[in-house]
Amino acid sequence: MLHRIGKYTIGFEDTPVITGFGSIAGKKEAKGPLKNNFDKIFYDPRAGQSTFEKAESFFQQEAVEVALNKSKKKAEDVDFIFAGDLLNQCISSSYGLKDYNIPYLGQYGACSTMAQGLIMASVMVESGGANCAVCVTSSHFCSAERQYRFPLEYGGQRTPTAQWTVTGSGSCVVEKSGKGIGVRRATVGKIVDLGVSDLNNMGAAMAPAAAKTLCEFFKDTDTKPKDYDLILTGDLGKVGSGCLYELMSKEGYNIKNNHNDCGLMIFDLERQDVHAGGSGCGCAGSVLCSTILPEMLKGKYKNILFMATGALMSPTSSMQGETMPSVAHLVNLSPV
Amino acid sequence: MLHRIGKYTIGFEDTPVITGFGSIAGKKEAKGPLKNNFDKIFYDPRAGQSTFEKAESFFQQEAVEVALNKSKKKAEDVDFIFAGDLLNQCISSSYGLKDYNIPYLGQYGACSTMAQGLIMASVMVESGGANCAVCVTSSHFCSAERQYRFPLEYGGQRTPTAQWTVTGSGSCVVEKSGKGIGVRRATVGKIVDLGVSDLNNMGAAMAPAAAKTLCEFFKDTDTKPKDYDLILTGDLGKVGSGCLYELMSKEGYNIKNNHNDCGLMIFDLERQDVHAGGSGCGCAGSVLCSTILPEMLKGKYKNILFMATGALMSPTSSMQGETMPSVAHLVNLSPV
Repeated sequence: MLHRIGKYTIGFEDTPVITGFGSIAGKKEAKGPLKNNFDKIFYDPRAGQSTFEKAESFFQQEAVEVALNKSKKKAEDVDFIFAGDLLNQCISSSYGLKDYNIPYLGQYGACSTMAQGLIMASVMVESGGANCAVCVTSSHFCSAERQYRFPLEYGGQRTPTAQWTVTGSGSCVVEKSGKGIGVRRATVGKIVDLGVSDLNNMGAAMAPAAAKTLCEFFKDTDTKPKDYDLILTGDLGKVGSGCLYELMSKEGYNIKNNHNDCGLMIFDLERQDVHAGGSGCGCAGSVLCSTILPEMLKGKYKNILFMATGALMSPTSSMQGETMPSVAHLVNLSPV
Repeated sequence: MLHRIGKYTIGFEDTPVITGFGSIAGKKEAKGPLKNNFDKIFYDPRAGQSTFEKAESFFQQEAVEVALNKSKKKAEDVDFIFAGDLLNQCISSSYGLKDYNIPYLGQYGACSTMAQGLIMASVMVESGGANCAVCVTSSHFCSAERQYRFPLEYGGQRTPTAQWTVTGSGSCVVEKSGKGIGVRRATVGKIVDLGVSDLNNMGAAMAPAAAKTLCEFFKDTDTKPKDYDLILTGDLGKVGSGCLYELMSKEGYNIKNNHNDCGLMIFDLERQDVHAGGSGCGCAGSVLCSTILPEMLKGKYKNILFMATGALMSPTSSMQGETMPSVAHLVNLSPV
């Protein structure tokens, strides 16, 4: 059973376990600092498919396949799959997973989807509804950029605050028991909108949501930043991480010493011309599953907070002059 | 706790209760057979907002407001809200609910979202993760048609199999206990794609998913169609309902006598020029919350199956020549 901790946090009494995980990356990601960590790398942006969208679907298939193999599970052992992505109507997920024949629950949390899916899979296992549940997410530079911003061929100059959509995917298998990484507590975020409307500054739009969720988690659990080896945000990038430090500092928390951001880890910001860092559902997904979870298994981290953030706008809402509402979901992980 | 029934169905041991529900409808819906049932009707397609998208967001707010009032709850009593819609990046939900300050979990099941949200809210309550959870969904003819098909001004002729996107919204409040309608069992659907690619024949694309979920539920629970007062599909319409009868008949089930479809109930097909019936997330949502749940409370139905169906394609996938994958989620409801 779940229990409520404080006002907004839930605790998992039986600790669902991430028993397998898979990560997929594209060419640019494979030239970054995490190059040796990904399970599979596709140098062709179409990965042998006829469109970028189909390639992204294929990445989800591959990430799930790797995760299932690592946990020694087959698709027919999976009771539910929670999946989502950035494309309109989440087609990377629906087309990518349609041949798996697994009960499917589509999620939309924009770049927060990896944390959201992990929470929902863990809730389903903890509640007795599933023995085994999977979550997966993805993003693709080519499919996302042309949908959200400009045709790829346009080649417009990018602003210093812009982030680079990660081509990649991450998937976790969550089970009732086993060896792996335990899901201990989670805080589902609220929608926060402090009025940022610049589509090229997603980090600043998402930082307030991250600060809100993180503060609520600390209050609910009566813990402090130093109680965790790592506070890992999804894709705030350089600008958003700075905003987060400032917002947390105003609330009396200093997280600088143990914070990192998947968008800062996946690329070398100086060398790879990605401006403020990586972004996209696949950013948090692929960094968690390629680097953080394996390092936790090796003992590098004993207790971490994984918090993916998402900006919930669309090109339509932006063209209508709306600001960007954001959300951040937090999961507390430690080895079992 | 949840328990698994057969291969794919989950059972709610403590029976979460729908204690409040709200329904919103537009002008055309208010001229249909259910006109006296809706909680609120907006005759202006913009509902006083500056865009159709903002109007749809406003419908979600209103539906949640009505549902909360009926269950005598305030927004701050709600632990989680599960919301989704048809618009790109689910902006009706994110913009509509951002001021509620409720932990938010975005869902994407296309027109199956009402059933999906109801299942997730019930799981959260049953698991102990929430004392009170809300689900909401919406659709709007004007925001959906221009996104999925043609500019509204284009005025193209519609095919006989085409359905009419419902302008409306539905919301349920789910609690641990209370007076209302109990959530007994649920079957989460798998993605099914039998190769239909005609965007103007969604019913035919979704019927196979509905048949699959319904057959699995009957097998898992060892029950038959006649055990239920009503088998209510979301928006298969006239063509899809016919396909469903045929597919079920091949599996040895006759559901004709106790089946109805929200898309057939909300409009008068002869009189209202809607061709094969209503569709959209708001179709199943508004019919369930305006008509079915109140009628259950009055004793008309004692045991029903509510199964909303969704087509998981996007305009991009259709333009790329892809067929339409679909999904259907089923909830078994009876008064407590």
